[in-house]
Amino acid sequence: MEKQKIITISREFGSGGRTIGRMVAERLGYTFYDKELVDHVALESGFAPQYVEEHGEHSPSKSIFSYAFANQSIPGVMNGLSTADFLWNVQCSVILQLADKEPCVIVGRNADYILKDREDCLHVFVHANKDFRADRIVRLYGESEKSPKSRLNEKDKRRQVNYRHYTGRNWGESQNYDICLDSSKLGIEKCVDIIVSLVQE
Amino acid sequence: MEKQKIITISREFGSGGRTIGRMVAERLGYTFYDKELVDHVALESGFAPQYVEEHGEHSPSKSIFSYAFANQSIPGVMNGLSTADFLWNVQCSVILQLADKEPCVIVGRNADYILKDREDCLHVFVHANKDFRADRIVRLYGESEKSPKSRLNEKDKRRQVNYRHYTGRNWGESQNYDICLDSSKLGIEKCVDIIVSLVQE
Repeated sequence: MEKQKIITISREFGSGGRTIGRMVAERLGYTFYDKELVDHVALESGFAPQYVEEHGEHSPSKSIFSYAFANQSIPGVMNGLSTADFLWNVQCSVILQLADKEPCVIVGRNADYILKDREDCLHVFVHANKDFRADRIVRLYGESEKSPKSRLNEKDKRRQVNYRHYTGRNWGESQNYDICLDSSKLGIEKCVDIIVSLVQE
Repeated sequence: MEKQKIITISREFGSGGRTIGRMVAERLGYTFYDKELVDHVALESGFAPQYVEEHGEHSPSKSIFSYAFANQSIPGVMNGLSTADFLWNVQCSVILQLADKEPCVIVGRNADYILKDREDCLHVFVHANKDFRADRIVRLYGESEKSPKSRLNEKDKRRQVNYRHYTGRNWGESQNYDICLDSSKLGIEKCVDIIVSLVQE
């Protein structure tokens, strides 16, 4: 296996994929792109970071609004694309540029698909059972009006739809990744060890 | 993570999953069930091993024949079940018994689903790209009239349909497994190392 210079981590909400990505990047001395990626995309697209964060990997909950917005866009700026499609294009371009720059770990943003043709990428998917994820999102993000499980279901659904729409693939299908890990079964630390060992050998 | 006494290995045809299973069993000193499982099921069901081998994890290519056969079955022996359903029942019962007996590695036969409620099981899925698999089946099983890729497609399809029918799940969906590995990317030896490390730690 060629030396893996780029690691993409796709993850179910609450599975600890982001934490795993950060720990892997620290252990390998790779640049870590999560929020940092959002800032890059915000800068390139002109959208607010919060908007990119919310819509970059989720299907819009009100897609009609998204198209209405597109129709009012300034010609030549968004080329008549919907805001979602425009954001997707910017995201693709930013991810391709970053991957060319230096060894890095990229969390989310369908980077597994965007970088699928590079040989020097390791594509990881992290998932976990619902109890583990529900417990984790409450500890990390606090309570909300909705139950933790309905928050998970909603986020899962929006990521699935977004992924399917832009990649034509099914979210979480093992064949799209080099390795898929259940963090609730294996533990966060062990997931980190396995990924690091795949790059270091 | 509790000590994993049972390892189930589900695999795409030609991915090397069986080889990985055998090597893992040797390294851990676990009993290995592949052909041996077929013999157990054959003994319990009264079918020929070759029949069990061919139909135990593949949807019948001629399902009408399978039901016609069932109608002619001796009452009380197959309880009016189709041969496929009867075989499935025997397979479930044999796998549950074997898992209770001693630490083991079980390849295929939807054992991941049959043993899904046991905490002491590690469920592994092995997949690989089509070129790797096509090359491997020609080396291991020789040429045939059909092209290697159409042999793969046919076998994949039959396993998918069988798995879906008996488990209600989608074949290869990462969430059904504790770990999924691309043997064409990671290499057979590395897959073995990872699985062994998950049991030994």
